[in-house]
Amino acid sequence: MSTIEQVQKHWQGVPFTSVEIQDAFWRPRLEVLKKTTVRTCLDQCEATGRIANFSKAAGLMDGEYEGMYYNDSDVYKVIEGAAYTLMLERDDKLEAELDMIIEKIRAAQEPDGYLSTYFTVCAPELKWSDMEKHEMYNGGHLIEAAVAYFEATGKRALLDVACRLADHYDSLFGPGKRHWAEGHEEIELALVKLYQATKQERYWKLALWLLEERGHGHGQGEIWNKPEWGPAYCQDDIPVREIERVTGHAVRAMYLYAAMADVVNVSGDPAYVGALQRVWSHTVERNMYVTGGVGPSVHNEGFTHDYDLPNESAYCETCAAIAMAFWNHRMNLLFGEAKYADLVETELYNGALSGISLSGDRFFYVNPLASQGAHHRVEWFHTSCCPTNLVRFIPSIGQYAYAATSDGIAVNQYVGGHADLETGCGKKVEVTQKTNYPWDGTIELTVNPEQARDFSVRLRLPGWCKGYRITINGEQTVILPKNGYLDLRRHWSQGDIVLLELDMPVEVVRSRPEVDANRGRVALQRGPIVYCLEQQDNPDLSYDGFKISPSGGIYVEHRPELLGGLTTLTVNSAQPGEKPYRLIPYYAWDNRQPGFMQIWMTEADNKQLYSH
Amino acid sequence: MSTIEQVQKHWQGVPFTSVEIQDAFWRPRLEVLKKTTVRTCLDQCEATGRIANFSKAAGLMDGEYEGMYYNDSDVYKVIEGAAYTLMLERDDKLEAELDMIIEKIRAAQEPDGYLSTYFTVCAPELKWSDMEKHEMYNGGHLIEAAVAYFEATGKRALLDVACRLADHYDSLFGPGKRHWAEGHEEIELALVKLYQATKQERYWKLALWLLEERGHGHGQGEIWNKPEWGPAYCQDDIPVREIERVTGHAVRAMYLYAAMADVVNVSGDPAYVGALQRVWSHTVERNMYVTGGVGPSVHNEGFTHDYDLPNESAYCETCAAIAMAFWNHRMNLLFGEAKYADLVETELYNGALSGISLSGDRFFYVNPLASQGAHHRVEWFHTSCCPTNLVRFIPSIGQYAYAATSDGIAVNQYVGGHADLETGCGKKVEVTQKTNYPWDGTIELTVNPEQARDFSVRLRLPGWCKGYRITINGEQTVILPKNGYLDLRRHWSQGDIVLLELDMPVEVVRSRPEVDANRGRVALQRGPIVYCLEQQDNPDLSYDGFKISPSGGIYVEHRPELLGGLTTLTVNSAQPGEKPYRLIPYYAWDNRQPGFMQIWMTEADNKQLYSH
Repeated sequence: MSTIEQVQKHWQGVPFTSVEIQDAFWRPRLEVLKKTTVRTCLDQCEATGRIANFSKAAGLMDGEYEGMYYNDSDVYKVIEGAAYTLMLERDDKLEAELDMIIEKIRAAQEPDGYLSTYFTVCAPELKWSDMEKHEMYNGGHLIEAAVAYFEATGKRALLDVACRLADHYDSLFGPGKRHWAEGHEEIELALVKLYQATKQERYWKLALWLLEERGHGHGQGEIWNKPEWGPAYCQDDIPVREIERVTGHAVRAMYLYAAMADVVNVSGDPAYVGALQRVWSHTVERNMYVTGGVGPSVHNEGFTHDYDLPNESAYCETCAAIAMAFWNHRMNLLFGEAKYADLVETELYNGALSGISLSGDRFFYVNPLASQGAHHRVEWFHTSCCPTNLVRFIPSIGQYAYAATSDGIAVNQYVGGHADLETGCGKKVEVTQKTNYPWDGTIELTVNPEQARDFSVRLRLPGWCKGYRITINGEQTVILPKNGYLDLRRHWSQGDIVLLELDMPVEVVRSRPEVDANRGRVALQRGPIVYCLEQQDNPDLSYDGFKISPSGGIYVEHRPELLGGLTTLTVNSAQPGEKPYRLIPYYAWDNRQPGFMQIWMTEADNKQLYSH
Repeated sequence: MSTIEQVQKHWQGVPFTSVEIQDAFWRPRLEVLKKTTVRTCLDQCEATGRIANFSKAAGLMDGEYEGMYYNDSDVYKVIEGAAYTLMLERDDKLEAELDMIIEKIRAAQEPDGYLSTYFTVCAPELKWSDMEKHEMYNGGHLIEAAVAYFEATGKRALLDVACRLADHYDSLFGPGKRHWAEGHEEIELALVKLYQATKQERYWKLALWLLEERGHGHGQGEIWNKPEWGPAYCQDDIPVREIERVTGHAVRAMYLYAAMADVVNVSGDPAYVGALQRVWSHTVERNMYVTGGVGPSVHNEGFTHDYDLPNESAYCETCAAIAMAFWNHRMNLLFGEAKYADLVETELYNGALSGISLSGDRFFYVNPLASQGAHHRVEWFHTSCCPTNLVRFIPSIGQYAYAATSDGIAVNQYVGGHADLETGCGKKVEVTQKTNYPWDGTIELTVNPEQARDFSVRLRLPGWCKGYRITINGEQTVILPKNGYLDLRRHWSQGDIVLLELDMPVEVVRSRPEVDANRGRVALQRGPIVYCLEQQDNPDLSYDGFKISPSGGIYVEHRPELLGGLTTLTVNSAQPGEKPYRLIPYYAWDNRQPGFMQIWMTEADNKQLYSH
C-alpha cells in the first residue's frame, strides 16, 4: 500500500461550486447557514471585538486588544465561509461588508508582512518567542480566507495580504533560517492551498519544511515546558515521517495529518504515506467514537490512551470532527479508497453536524455521547473556533460528493442534486442524483457525458452497507466492490441511468471489548445516522434508568414534521409496562427543551437465541 | 410463562384448505408435489412391495414380507399427502388409485383391529413384544392418513380402520391394562387428531396415557438393552413432565414434543408447559443448526451433547426438520409467540425444503451443512420416511400461514395468496397477501372482514428482521412488537390495506463460541434464507480452500432463470485475483452437477475496523 506509485495515481477533488445540492437534507442546511450562521458569526466577531482588534492593530482605533491571541482566526474563518456562500449565490451586501472587514485586515498588516493583531497591539516584543501562540495558525486561516475570497470575487486585496504574510514567513523561516514548530497546525495546509492558487512552489516547500521541523526538539514555549503536556500535545514529539500513533490536541493532530496528505500529494514522499496509513489506523481503530468524534479528554482537548472513549465526558470537539472530514477527504483522494470517504460521511451526518443547531445559531464546542441534561448549545464561545469552522465547512460540502479519477469519476457522497464534473483526463460529465439519502438507500444516478465514451463511474459502497443491487438502464449488473467502490466501467451515453439500492437496515452497534465505557451497551445506527435517546421523546425515563433490548424489532418512521424532518426509531422497552423508547438522530439532539441524552444504551440482554 | 392460564388462551390453527397459495415461490412447489412427488412415492411404494405387504397380510397374495417393519407407514404417509392434494384440487384418477390401496389396507386389518403387516405376515407371535418395533408408529400414520382421506373425500373406509385400530390399542393398553412406551413416537399426536376428527375423548386420553407411560421403566425391547442407546434414545429415560433436555433420536423427540403440545392443549397440565418451554430452549439454544436442522449424529439419528454441531457429518434428517415445524407450529398456537413461527419459517425455507429436489423426485434423507461432493439426492431410500414426510408436509403448508386468535387473526407466514379465515370468536375475515417473499420484505395485506368491526390482526415480525415500517391505508402507524407480533387492533373495514415493509438485509451469521465446528467461520443469511457456496457456481474453488471476507459488500441479485428462480449473493474473494464467490440458497443445492457445498465458510478476517 505504501508505495510511491500509489500516491502518483491520486485522484483530484472537485470544486464544491460544481456541485449543486438540491435535496431535502442538505439544501435547507445550506440556506440556514447562509441566512443565519454567517450573520450570527459576523455579528459575534463584531460584538466581541474580534474585528475591532484589526482596527486597533492598524491604528485606526484606540483601545486594548480583546480576547484570546487566536481571535483573528475566527474573523478569517467567517470570511472564508462567507466567501463560499458567495460562490454559491452572489450577495452584494454581504460582499460589501466583507470588503470593509478585509480593508481593516489589510490595514493591520505590518510593513514587513507580519500579521497577528494580538502581538501587534499587546506584545510586539514577544513575536515569534512562543511557538504555541498561534501566529502562524492565524496566518493559515488568513490564507485560506484569502484564497476563498479571491475565488469568490476575483478581488486580490486579501490574497495580496496573504502572499505578503507567507513571504514574510518564508523570509524568516526555512532551511538555513530560523527553526519553527508551530504549536497549532493549520499553516501547512493553508500554504499548500496558497501554492495551488498562486502556483508559487515556495509555499508548498515552506509547508513541507514546517512539517519536517516537528519532532526534532525545536519547539519552544510555555506548552513544551509543562510536564503534563509537553511536545506531544502539539505533535512535536516525533518527526512526522515516523508517526505511529495519534497524540495530543485533537484538532491540531487532524490538521497535521491533513497537511501531510496535502504535501505528499505534491512531494510523493513514501515515508509520509506510511505514516499517514499508520496513524489513520491507530486513530480509527482505537481512538474514535461511533459518531466520528475524536479526542476524548477536556484536559488536553485531545487524545489519551487507546480505547479511552468515555461518553459523558467525551470532549469530541466540533472542530476535530470537521478536521477528521478534512483529513479523510484528502486520504480518499490520495489513496482512492472508500473507507476514507466513509468517515467523511460519518462526520457529515454525526460528529460534525451535531455541532450546529437546526436553527443555525446555536453551537456545541464539545459533543459528548451522553449527557445527564446539563450540556447545551450556546450562541458563541470565548474560544469560538467551532462556530467559525462550521461556517466554512457546511457551504463547501459539495466538494466531498465527487472526485475525478484518472479514468473517470467517483461518487463519494449520495446527495440529491446535480454536478458538472470532469474526469481526470478532462472529459466533461454531468451527473444528477435523485435520492432521499440519508433516510433511504436508493439512489438514481443519471450520467450525461458531453460525448458518449468509455470511462469509469465509481460508486462508494458505504461501509455500513452489506447487501446492494444495481441496475444500469434497468438491467441487473453484477459489480463487486474494489477498494470500497463499485466500479462501473462501460461506454457511457447521455441519459444512462444507474439505480443503486443500498440495504439500509437498523444496525445494533457494539464496541470493541476494550472500550470500558461501552461494555454491556449498544448503539443503534441506520445508514450513516447514529441515533440517540433524548429525554424529550422519553419523558418517563430517567438517565441510565432504562435498558434497551435490541433483539426485538425496531419501528422505522420518517417524520417530516419533526426537527426539520428526520427518521426516528422506536423500540420496545425491555421492562414490561414501560413505554417504547423513541430515538432520534444524534445530530438533532438538544434542539428542544433540555434533558438527558444517550447514544450507548445499557443492553437488557445480549443473548443469542440460537446456537448457530 | 408456565401457567395454566396461558395455555387456556391458546390460539387455533386454520385448515390449510382455507389458504389459497398464489405466489412465485410455493405455488410451483405445490404443483410439482402434486404432479411428481405424489406419483413417484406411490410408484416406489408399489415397486418396493410396501403396498403388496398389505395384500400379503390380507391373504390376497402370496409371498414374503418385503422391507422394514415400519414400511406400512410410508404407504399411509403417501395417502395422507395425496389426500391433502385432493383437498386442494380434486383428482378422480388419483382418488380411485388410493381407494384401491385403502381396500388392501382394510383387508390387512386383523379381526381384533390389529394392523401392522410385518407382524401379521412374519411374526404374529412377536406382536407387542418389543416396544421399538413401530407397531403404534405405523398405527399413528394410519390414523393421520385416515383423518386426511376422510376430510378430503368424505369416505369413511380408512377412518373406520383407524378407529378399529385405536380401539384395539385402547382395549390392550391404558390404566389397569398393559404398559406401553412406544419406541417411535407418532401415535400420540395421531390419537389427538383422531379425537379432533371423531370427538371421542378416549383417543386423547389414550395419547395422554401413552405420554405418561414414558420414563417409568416400562420400556422393553432390543433398543433398551443396548448400552450405547438405552431408554434415552426413544425418550423413555425420564417422565415427560420432567423433561429438561432434548435427547435421543431426533424425529422421535420432535414428535414427542409435538404430541405433548397437542395433549396440553386439551389437558391444560402446567407441568407439560414447563417441560415444553425447557426442552425448546435446550433444543434451539444449544442443539440446532442455522438451517433449523436438528440431530447431528448418524449414530443415533439424533442428539449428542450440547453445541455438537459438526457440518460435514451433520445428520439433520429431513423428517426431523419437518417435525420441528410440526412442533413449533403447535408451540406457536399454544403460547401465541412468534418465535415459534420463526422456526416454522426456518424449516420451510431451509432445513425441510432442502430435503426435496426442485424436480420433486429426488430426496435427501440427511442434510449436511457441508459436503466435499459425495452427498447427493436419490430417488428413494430403503428407509424412506423422508420422501413420504415431504409428501404430506408440502401440500399442507397453508396451515402455517395464519392462526385464529381469541380476538382476531395472526399472520404467521408471508405467502402470496388469499385466505378465508375466522377469528377465534367466529367472525369471518378474508385476507389477501401480495408479496415477493422470501426474496423481498414488502407485504401488502388486504383485510376484508365480512362486516366492519374491531378486531386484532397480528403480523409476525420475523426474528431476523430488525427495522420495519407499517402503513395502514397509507398512514404511518407506530406499532411495536409484542411476543414477536405487531398487533394491529382497530376497526377493520372491507378493503383496508396494510403495507408492511421488513428490512431484509444480508446478515453475517456467527455461531456461539461454544460451537467448535464454526469457529472462525461465518454463514450468510438474507431474510429467512440461509445461503451456501456450491462448487457449480464457483468452479475455480476447492473445498475449504477459500476464505470469505464478509466485511465487503454483497451483491444481491434475483435470477428468475436460475434453479426455479432465486436470489443469489455474490461476494468478493478475500484472496486477490480470485473470482467473486457466488452463493445460492441452501435449499437449492445439489440440483445440478455434483460438487462441494459449504454453509459455514472460513472467514478471512473478523476485524472490527472502528473502535466503537
